[in-house]
Amino acid sequence: MLNIDFYQKLIQQKIQEQSFSGTPPELYEPIAYTMQLGGKRLRPTLTLMTCDIFGGDIYSAINAALGLETFHNFTLLHDDIMDQAPLRRGQPTVYQKWDANRAILSGDTMMVMAYDYLLNSPKDLLSDLFTVFNKVGKEVCEGQQFDMNFETNDHVSIDEYLEMIRLKTAVLIGGSMHVGAIIARVSEEKSKLVYSFGESIGMAFQLQDDLLDAYGDSNIFGKKTGGDICSNKKTYLYLKALEVANEADKSVLIKLYSSYPSDEQAKVLQVINIFNKYQISHLTKQLMEEYYSNAMKFLKLIDLNAEKERLLISLADTLMKRDN
Amino acid sequence: MLNIDFYQKLIQQKIQEQSFSGTPPELYEPIAYTMQLGGKRLRPTLTLMTCDIFGGDIYSAINAALGLETFHNFTLLHDDIMDQAPLRRGQPTVYQKWDANRAILSGDTMMVMAYDYLLNSPKDLLSDLFTVFNKVGKEVCEGQQFDMNFETNDHVSIDEYLEMIRLKTAVLIGGSMHVGAIIARVSEEKSKLVYSFGESIGMAFQLQDDLLDAYGDSNIFGKKTGGDICSNKKTYLYLKALEVANEADKSVLIKLYSSYPSDEQAKVLQVINIFNKYQISHLTKQLMEEYYSNAMKFLKLIDLNAEKERLLISLADTLMKRDN
Repeated sequence: MLNIDFYQKLIQQKIQEQSFSGTPPELYEPIAYTMQLGGKRLRPTLTLMTCDIFGGDIYSAINAALGLETFHNFTLLHDDIMDQAPLRRGQPTVYQKWDANRAILSGDTMMVMAYDYLLNSPKDLLSDLFTVFNKVGKEVCEGQQFDMNFETNDHVSIDEYLEMIRLKTAVLIGGSMHVGAIIARVSEEKSKLVYSFGESIGMAFQLQDDLLDAYGDSNIFGKKTGGDICSNKKTYLYLKALEVANEADKSVLIKLYSSYPSDEQAKVLQVINIFNKYQISHLTKQLMEEYYSNAMKFLKLIDLNAEKERLLISLADTLMKRDN
Repeated sequence: MLNIDFYQKLIQQKIQEQSFSGTPPELYEPIAYTMQLGGKRLRPTLTLMTCDIFGGDIYSAINAALGLETFHNFTLLHDDIMDQAPLRRGQPTVYQKWDANRAILSGDTMMVMAYDYLLNSPKDLLSDLFTVFNKVGKEVCEGQQFDMNFETNDHVSIDEYLEMIRLKTAVLIGGSMHVGAIIARVSEEKSKLVYSFGESIGMAFQLQDDLLDAYGDSNIFGKKTGGDICSNKKTYLYLKALEVANEADKSVLIKLYSSYPSDEQAKVLQVINIFNKYQISHLTKQLMEEYYSNAMKFLKLIDLNAEKERLLISLADTLMKRDN
């Protein structure tokens, strides 16, 4: 059994070996730029690791892993247009560096490339793999649409928010592990448990992302701290604060989240002060622990030996305690 | 052997039977709107017809046909954003009716849906089907990028233009027939000839589209006549005129194609006058005949019986002589 670093380095190396060039270069330059921006390579790492844990040949999972990373990067390209995000991993987003048309079309091409990678998996597994991939693909789009809807909806509930991040983020993390399990020829029943483990960890992962946006170090996180607050994004932190704050603080919060002041830092500080007053960081970590504990329940049902179980637990821990 | 109308009506009926609703409705409304806008349903008709001609079971080709129509509609959704097209089939485009974000994301979802339809094809053919589909998908994106590049390129050659329309339009027409042949379990060699037949017809089809834009009746064509001229689109008509016109007319043409006058009709008339002076319509039809004759050469190599050959010829004729 190998450690997480090994899978991450292996997939990183495989990505570097890929040629993302093509004709016309205007189409392929943004693809190469995006794929080489780096990042944690979390999703393909999960695919390889899951495949290995269940005794599969990780080299037969590499193409599917590349497909998942390419798909993930495609969603980032399009999301960045829709969210008008200036930076991604500390670098200009594609639509900023080039333009929205290039970002749309390069993204479309990456989606086809993702399917093309996946196609280079064992033939008898294609139907199962594409079924998982398509389900995840549709759900990620649904999640992004919910996310956009929330921008103009003043009555987003915590449940609705959690369903949104499940669709937008957690299903792809679960799906990446599911794909690894399928390639390792794990039974359908166990594969679904693996998916559920990944989905639960994915929920905790996104909540950690919300936390890092408010409390992280922007140099490590690669995004502007307080970015969600500046853009009035209704994250779990905000929605939880609305739930637990007194009427006065709730009013202040709602007012702050309907403004775009020139002094962004002052606004961020005011919001963080309210978050701190109500221990929102602690409450968020509490919910993360709930998802973690759900993940552990699924893990028990998968019934792995101690060493393999330890590897999955260490993965979950890494995702929970990350600072970027 | 059935006639073209039969396949067209069958696929139209199947599309009407589909449910394009889903959650969140903001994501699925534009999909239902797009899929129900109508149109010729050319690509899925070709899939069913090809499958039938080669003795396949057309009902096992219906999902792949739906996939091709959904993919085609996805490209229209995204192209309309990039081209800032106001109308599609006489109705407001999705990005106009809603907004660009909805058009991007609904388009992305349609692409996944296209793959999902294709997945419901005979399992042992999935690898071959996805291989064709992915190749076509990537080429269509490349074609659209070339098309965008040409907007700001003053030295587009006729060859470059023809390669652009091959990628953007003809490969999907060829691919739709290729998919039908695969499902009919035609040999790889013959399937490729079927593809080439379709690609050649697709070239003629797009040239006819260029002609209709300048010379068609907008009520029948469903798009504004002269739209390409108003938007200074470098079509075959324009590039051929540049090639054959005298220096004076060439200068006028170049000047007209660098302006956006308020009196669009006057500009369209001036351009058409130059086209007429040099018999551009005739020269375009001549090139269409060349592609038609290429298609007939591929058809001979496929070596079908007379009745089946007649059906494919009548298809080619229909596409050549259409007025919408």
